[in-house]
Amino acid sequence: MDVLEILKKYSTKVDKEIDNALDTVDPENLHDASKHLINAGGKKIRPSLVLLSSEAVGGTFEKALKTAAAVEMIHTFSLIHDDIMDKDEMRRGRPSVHALWGDPMAILAGDTLFSLAFELVLQTRQEDVPSERVLEASKTVVDSCIKICEGQAFDMGFEGKFDLQESEYMNMIYKKTGALIAAATKSGAILGGGTDEQVEALSEYGRLIGMAFQIQDDYLDVISDEKEIGKPVGSDIVEGKMTLMVVHTLSHASDEDKKLLISILEECGEEEVDEAIALFKKYGSINYTRDIALQNVQKAKKILEVVEDSPAKESLLLLADFVLQRSH
Amino acid sequence: MDVLEILKKYSTKVDKEIDNALDTVDPENLHDASKHLINAGGKKIRPSLVLLSSEAVGGTFEKALKTAAAVEMIHTFSLIHDDIMDKDEMRRGRPSVHALWGDPMAILAGDTLFSLAFELVLQTRQEDVPSERVLEASKTVVDSCIKICEGQAFDMGFEGKFDLQESEYMNMIYKKTGALIAAATKSGAILGGGTDEQVEALSEYGRLIGMAFQIQDDYLDVISDEKEIGKPVGSDIVEGKMTLMVVHTLSHASDEDKKLLISILEECGEEEVDEAIALFKKYGSINYTRDIALQNVQKAKKILEVVEDSPAKESLLLLADFVLQRSH
Repeated sequence: MDVLEILKKYSTKVDKEIDNALDTVDPENLHDASKHLINAGGKKIRPSLVLLSSEAVGGTFEKALKTAAAVEMIHTFSLIHDDIMDKDEMRRGRPSVHALWGDPMAILAGDTLFSLAFELVLQTRQEDVPSERVLEASKTVVDSCIKICEGQAFDMGFEGKFDLQESEYMNMIYKKTGALIAAATKSGAILGGGTDEQVEALSEYGRLIGMAFQIQDDYLDVISDEKEIGKPVGSDIVEGKMTLMVVHTLSHASDEDKKLLISILEECGEEEVDEAIALFKKYGSINYTRDIALQNVQKAKKILEVVEDSPAKESLLLLADFVLQRSH
Repeated sequence: MDVLEILKKYSTKVDKEIDNALDTVDPENLHDASKHLINAGGKKIRPSLVLLSSEAVGGTFEKALKTAAAVEMIHTFSLIHDDIMDKDEMRRGRPSVHALWGDPMAILAGDTLFSLAFELVLQTRQEDVPSERVLEASKTVVDSCIKICEGQAFDMGFEGKFDLQESEYMNMIYKKTGALIAAATKSGAILGGGTDEQVEALSEYGRLIGMAFQIQDDYLDVISDEKEIGKPVGSDIVEGKMTLMVVHTLSHASDEDKKLLISILEECGEEEVDEAIALFKKYGSINYTRDIALQNVQKAKKILEVVEDSPAKESLLLLADFVLQRSH
């Protein structure tokens, strides 16, 4: 089975669980706004990681299903609120929630998904999981939500911060992207009845592939062609975003090149994109970024050695590689 | 001890608990934005209700303290997001969070308080409370958050809905205001180790005084003077808000008076406020509103009969009356 088949197998059941949870939401416009982005697809990597992690430690699929749905809802909540903050009008090829329903309803839709997600994790009590494990999984998921908020606040604060250190960048992407993926694999392992060692390993696996995922995003913005990623090459450069390539180049470049890159980031049309990319290449920042992503994936795979071989483990190994193979 | 002294006694400890929870938040602007409204005071009725409900069923103050802080943080989260949605620039005599930090940071501050609140409820594990009770209290608090979102969505949808039924209005204020107050008293009773009957009674007590609280708000807008409520008399009328008085008058008035009231609600300066109030009086809607609030409070007090006498119960009875005595 290839990765997309694995994801599809799990996503059907996750979608059903989310639908059931959202069906109770009143009034109708809040229901529709909450459901809009969920219906728009998405690869459902996070919920699949919850389910695979439960299975990898010998637990069942069912015990982790509600938490899998919850993690996807939290991911969606953060996308809806981020789109309002960033004034992004499109998401997954559709108008974003606030573009269709306005900011107030989009804020509420996010809040609703957020609340329902916690409700779902708590409902795991019904699945014959010890209360202590349900509490631990809940705490894991909640912790990651606090980090998501912090990560987004850091990200917003990085605009124009040209003395950004690599460690600050890494902390930001850990909180913004890595923490929820780590919570996905950790909560899955907890609910599946994993040992402390297994829970810790799966948590770390999630953190590492989550970081790789975000770093790969930075990389793809520069090396892909427009058709593949569905947006113009170098969008991050045009937006002046602090990516790992920017951070790396700025901390290695000559004063002159530094000034040039900053001026491009501060005000850049599409014609300066190539100039920025040339600077990234000059200082080895593109290869550096790719290497960091690759190292994270290799560490993630290595850490799974403490988990016994199983089809679920095999899928987790494939998913780690998939992070770097995907083109968008 | 009078009500304000009771509230003050509890609020100091609640404030400290909230401060501790917020101290960990990074970066600094997210921390400050999250704390702004908490520092601005507020009577802390909701957390006091959590603590008193725990004590009223024979539990300790300590077991309920983290949940008390959580309920206040959820209340604050909903105020921050509501102020963005309603474009309210002032709250508790200060600029609102979005007025000072902008919408994106205000959305995040709300989300952060929301996440931290659940974290706090889950931390009750450390207070020697059985896991089952912690899960039950968490579920109670989460359920009320879903209702808060629904209540706000209904409220937004009621603008200009002049055929609104009283039952729809009641459902809206239950979700928007009653549900969190019911969750406060219910979760307190759960964590204090109350019997099913006590938990149910305290939940219903909270729901009833929560409804009374909101209805009294409608009433105060019309019968107070500006100095007392800190905003012009009849603000709700100027804003065209669907209050219980409006709903009552519209469903009892002659066709002519109905038309008149609707035209005032649709476009009204301060000079038409008296005209609207005259209509409310003509159809007995002001007294009706006051009576409904009073009936709720009486029922709330009656329902506490299943709880043994104690200083905490005495305070809960005083707090029920306080809902109608307050002037703002």
